[in-house]
Amino acid sequence: MAERAALEELVRLQGERVRGLKQQKASTEQIEEEVAKLLKLKAQLGPDEGKHKFVLKTPKGTRDYSPRQMAVREKVFDVIISCFKRHGAEVIDTPVFELKDFDIAGQFDPMIPDAECLKIMCEILSSLQIGDFLVKVNDRRVLDGMFAVCGVPDTKFRTICSSVDKLDKVSWEEVKNEMVGEKGLAPEVADLIGDYVQQHGGVSLVEQLLQDPKLSQNKQALEGLGDLKLLFEYLTLFGIADKISFDLSLARGLDYYTGVIYEAVLLQPLARAGEEPLGVGSVAAGGRYDGLVGMFDPKGRKVPCVGLSIGVERIFSIVEQRLEALEEKVRTTETQVLVASAQKKLLEERLKLVSELWDAGIKAELLYKKNPKLLNQLQYCEEAGIPLVAIIGEQELKEGVIKLRSVASREEVDVRRGDLVEEIKRRTSQPFCIC
Amino acid sequence: MAERAALEELVRLQGERVRGLKQQKASTEQIEEEVAKLLKLKAQLGPDEGKHKFVLKTPKGTRDYSPRQMAVREKVFDVIISCFKRHGAEVIDTPVFELKDFDIAGQFDPMIPDAECLKIMCEILSSLQIGDFLVKVNDRRVLDGMFAVCGVPDTKFRTICSSVDKLDKVSWEEVKNEMVGEKGLAPEVADLIGDYVQQHGGVSLVEQLLQDPKLSQNKQALEGLGDLKLLFEYLTLFGIADKISFDLSLARGLDYYTGVIYEAVLLQPLARAGEEPLGVGSVAAGGRYDGLVGMFDPKGRKVPCVGLSIGVERIFSIVEQRLEALEEKVRTTETQVLVASAQKKLLEERLKLVSELWDAGIKAELLYKKNPKLLNQLQYCEEAGIPLVAIIGEQELKEGVIKLRSVASREEVDVRRGDLVEEIKRRTSQPFCIC
Repeated sequence: MAERAALEELVRLQGERVRGLKQQKASTEQIEEEVAKLLKLKAQLGPDEGKHKFVLKTPKGTRDYSPRQMAVREKVFDVIISCFKRHGAEVIDTPVFELKDFDIAGQFDPMIPDAECLKIMCEILSSLQIGDFLVKVNDRRVLDGMFAVCGVPDTKFRTICSSVDKLDKVSWEEVKNEMVGEKGLAPEVADLIGDYVQQHGGVSLVEQLLQDPKLSQNKQALEGLGDLKLLFEYLTLFGIADKISFDLSLARGLDYYTGVIYEAVLLQPLARAGEEPLGVGSVAAGGRYDGLVGMFDPKGRKVPCVGLSIGVERIFSIVEQRLEALEEKVRTTETQVLVASAQKKLLEERLKLVSELWDAGIKAELLYKKNPKLLNQLQYCEEAGIPLVAIIGEQELKEGVIKLRSVASREEVDVRRGDLVEEIKRRTSQPFCIC
Repeated sequence: MAERAALEELVRLQGERVRGLKQQKASTEQIEEEVAKLLKLKAQLGPDEGKHKFVLKTPKGTRDYSPRQMAVREKVFDVIISCFKRHGAEVIDTPVFELKDFDIAGQFDPMIPDAECLKIMCEILSSLQIGDFLVKVNDRRVLDGMFAVCGVPDTKFRTICSSVDKLDKVSWEEVKNEMVGEKGLAPEVADLIGDYVQQHGGVSLVEQLLQDPKLSQNKQALEGLGDLKLLFEYLTLFGIADKISFDLSLARGLDYYTGVIYEAVLLQPLARAGEEPLGVGSVAAGGRYDGLVGMFDPKGRKVPCVGLSIGVERIFSIVEQRLEALEEKVRTTETQVLVASAQKKLLEERLKLVSELWDAGIKAELLYKKNPKLLNQLQYCEEAGIPLVAIIGEQELKEGVIKLRSVASREEVDVRRGDLVEEIKRRTSQPFCIC
């Protein structure tokens, strides 16, 4: 253990040295030399490397992320992970989760798991508070059926599909030119496709297309539309139907999707009334791909699958931009209260109180000075964003109270020592906010 | 996004294929070939790889850890991370944390941060509930001073130090033989060392050694003992002095420690009364190494540092052994309630209720069947360890109530729908327990 701790601390420090050199724009040779040393140390560590926790002073400016960025990342991950857990997901190996093990739960009926995936997507995007969003939904079978009834040759399905997929970025004219000019599709066929793929709406559009003289003749399309109708029923029961748009241009260019597909886009915050809100890029996506996992099954069994992925990197940068725009100060610690003293010779009392608070589960700090100036202690709270100060004074000790100060309002009240924990909990319990 | 999601899903599936082959003990060539494919896919993904979250059905037996192991790991990390946060630590880059930034907080007075590190260690080990433990404490300066006054030549300090460090595993006789036989130390010098290093105790031992005619003449030893006395005062205020043992044989064979050093050991659970409990190995360690980080400082400034590391790998296996011994069933999900139905044709009602519960922050599930048998739903709860079932029935719907069933006691009570969320929260709010 001792040896291992030593090695690990040396690995960490060597890592810092390397990062430091990179910061200082040292020569490649120099960095490579230091990296070699690092790898050698890591090799000595063996497989356990990095499985220990450290509290260690790292020199400034040698981190992969700033504490501010780390705090944002942590909060975003918290939202996502707690949502997955709320839905009974099992951690396979972060960041991978698995919903009900389709063995225990037995067979499933159509669209119920698919609806839950969309619910999860909406819950995560709502609680991240990154602005209004829309989830585009389509179905591979509807796409294929549509291509068939429009007269697209089977061999051209995929390539036409990838043209259609561009409709969220470019105009229909450009897409049509690509289909006809580059991909040799007959103009009248392209126009038929155009009539379909420029439509989007709610369940009413699904019902309309179920009556469509051409589409309704296609078995695949009919299946897909039937399932979409059912899906919308469930989404209504989940209270998210208004977030979902059936969009015939959503193709996602993925061969292996077998059923419903979806993609969430953030909307331009400032779309004027009546104006079509513009998407500002996809932040989540998923769909059904029955049989894909089966590909890897020795007996080639079909394994029903729905999956979704959250574009956390994009979300990180959106949140960070937002915070910069708001000039929001992001806290990098969660400390609820600083235990401070008004006079000298009160270190023992500060240690006793902070220990009481830790044991009661309160996030608390104290300055490491024997006799810190009250001003410095208050200043530390301002800088670290600590909302409360528990001030011990000789007078307060006599009266068995603690002065509780709000850093923001500068208001101070005397709280009986026995009530301090509850009072701190009461004042610092807030709903989650990313900012 | 669509492309990227596709690629990531393919990377994941290729990863599963590789793991699958390993499970099936496929030929090295075959595996290497598949790994090459995997790396190629990953390369296409670029730097963002792995930054997305997935819900994806993975074939059984192709995981790095079982869901049970993952659940244990998660709980252990939760305990450690929440303790660091309680002490105002900042996430640098998991699993690395940093306490107060010694710039903002300014200078520190002796032993205050050191005492907090020991408090953190004790809090973590207590809340992990892995049995009784003891933290051995010593000081590099006391060790060096002791060697000096015993007459160990300066050149032999380190090698004798590493012999002393073995005293927790082998007898004094063996250590003495090594010192004298292998390392050529004079027997009478070894005996003098023996008188010291076989002692351990609390603050009283510190005070006794402060009066020691020989040690008290050594400036270094005196400094170290003085600081240890102060440390014990603070540990008493922190309420952990009884967990700490000043042990002169603790050396940790690390050149770079400059002050206090410590190492936590688990005690044999079944030490008979009066019998000295045996250590069953170190699970955490740390100490002060001022100046080590300074080594990497261009201006060679000394940076005061205290660090601690938690042996999480060892702790994982201890917890897992314990759970196996107890034949404890470990839950791999956190679901609080299953939304079930007593009759057919109630899917819509189940979807509405589960959605209400999710929106209220309750961890809830439902079976994906349209008309599941009540027996199957109850059986699922038994298998998944879900403690509560919210049963919807036609009668209950009429009366505006839900039947809430405890899976363990099989008791059922009618709860008014408006009170259901609170009742579930009340019944499922328990203090953390690792088992």
